[in-house]
Amino acid sequence: MARTPLWKSIALALTADIAEARYQTGDQLPTEAQLAAKFGVNRHTVRRALAEMADQGLVHARRGAGVFVAARPTDYPIGKRVRFHQSVAAGGQTPTKRLLALGTRAADTREAQALNLPTGAAVLVYDGLSLADGAPIALFRSTFPADRFPDLHAALSETHSVTQALIRCGVEDYTRATTRITAKLANATQALHLRIAEGAPILRTVGLNIDAKGEPVEYGCTWFAGDRVTLTVDGI
Amino acid sequence: MARTPLWKSIALALTADIAEARYQTGDQLPTEAQLAAKFGVNRHTVRRALAEMADQGLVHARRGAGVFVAARPTDYPIGKRVRFHQSVAAGGQTPTKRLLALGTRAADTREAQALNLPTGAAVLVYDGLSLADGAPIALFRSTFPADRFPDLHAALSETHSVTQALIRCGVEDYTRATTRITAKLANATQALHLRIAEGAPILRTVGLNIDAKGEPVEYGCTWFAGDRVTLTVDGI
Repeated sequence: MARTPLWKSIALALTADIAEARYQTGDQLPTEAQLAAKFGVNRHTVRRALAEMADQGLVHARRGAGVFVAARPTDYPIGKRVRFHQSVAAGGQTPTKRLLALGTRAADTREAQALNLPTGAAVLVYDGLSLADGAPIALFRSTFPADRFPDLHAALSETHSVTQALIRCGVEDYTRATTRITAKLANATQALHLRIAEGAPILRTVGLNIDAKGEPVEYGCTWFAGDRVTLTVDGI
Repeated sequence: MARTPLWKSIALALTADIAEARYQTGDQLPTEAQLAAKFGVNRHTVRRALAEMADQGLVHARRGAGVFVAARPTDYPIGKRVRFHQSVAAGGQTPTKRLLALGTRAADTREAQALNLPTGAAVLVYDGLSLADGAPIALFRSTFPADRFPDLHAALSETHSVTQALIRCGVEDYTRATTRITAKLANATQALHLRIAEGAPILRTVGLNIDAKGEPVEYGCTWFAGDRVTLTVDGI
């Protein structure tokens, strides 16, 4: 079989350094010139190694600043029960939510259709940010049928948790009916909230949650920082 | 309730034009100046409407060329049986595959681990492009245990279909054990193959397929053009 190319050996050596925690999450790697000197190769070879590692999500370059060790992405299972709190806690991180806005307005066409409401019916809209160990990992907008849940506004203000707030409104359990996943580029607002660069990759999921009777209870959109989250689907 | 903002009315009017096929997939929209004149607003308002529509995946801007009606994204279900051919055919489109490269090499660490092979064992690697109605929608790299399937190389060369080729090798059925989904930015090679801009959003899935006995038969990575595909997961 072919010999391992030089750039690949360097990528493997640096990957081992990260795996063995010689460089930790957020650490800056030595400059291209320093790495070139260390490995006795030219900078082009170092650049190819770093590009490969960036492609694998192990490091990320910040223009003008250098190359940094990336946070290990959080696994986020997509399935019948999608619960942010449990997913993050299962990864050994502390989940929190920050409320950005909470209010009632008329449903748009998609929301009304998804929630099985007449056009223009009132929906409660919860905009928020999900964090793991204090680092923002997702921005979300959830909409709920406002007339069905008159106490939801107060419950969400207090708990910030959709699961807890819905229990207070009599919905003991809900499940995910459908999830649609696309890739997008972060716009300026999303970048600001998620602390990523404008134009960085984003995973967008659109999901519908239903109660035990199959009635829609929540229709929502979540924007995950693409390099901090891996959505996982297990075989069924 | 608040009045609909001007930019939103314009976005709704243009969206209706697309829905009613006055503008079709691939058509160029009038310029910002023409739209501003048509709606009697300034170009900033038009730009905001177009940005909103781009965000929804209805149109896409090509720098220096104008704004075009986007192809309606293909829905691609992620589940126990993930079959490109059926997914695309179900959407009323004609699926084809183009073989880019086919050859045997030593497995890298991840491939060996996923396929349950000793490090350095031989894998058959199939690089290809999946098209719907002739438009590229995904680039893929599939790896197979080479020693287990000595006839797979010939079968893939001939059929280009993993399902058909595996049947010839005695694997009547296979199912998806896991899928991992992330968002990435297209690099130059991916952009070239998928006919998208470098830095455009890409959905990357990494999946493992197993046979009826639970043995891994295929470990692969697929890069979907983010604005042409929506991955869907149904509640389980």
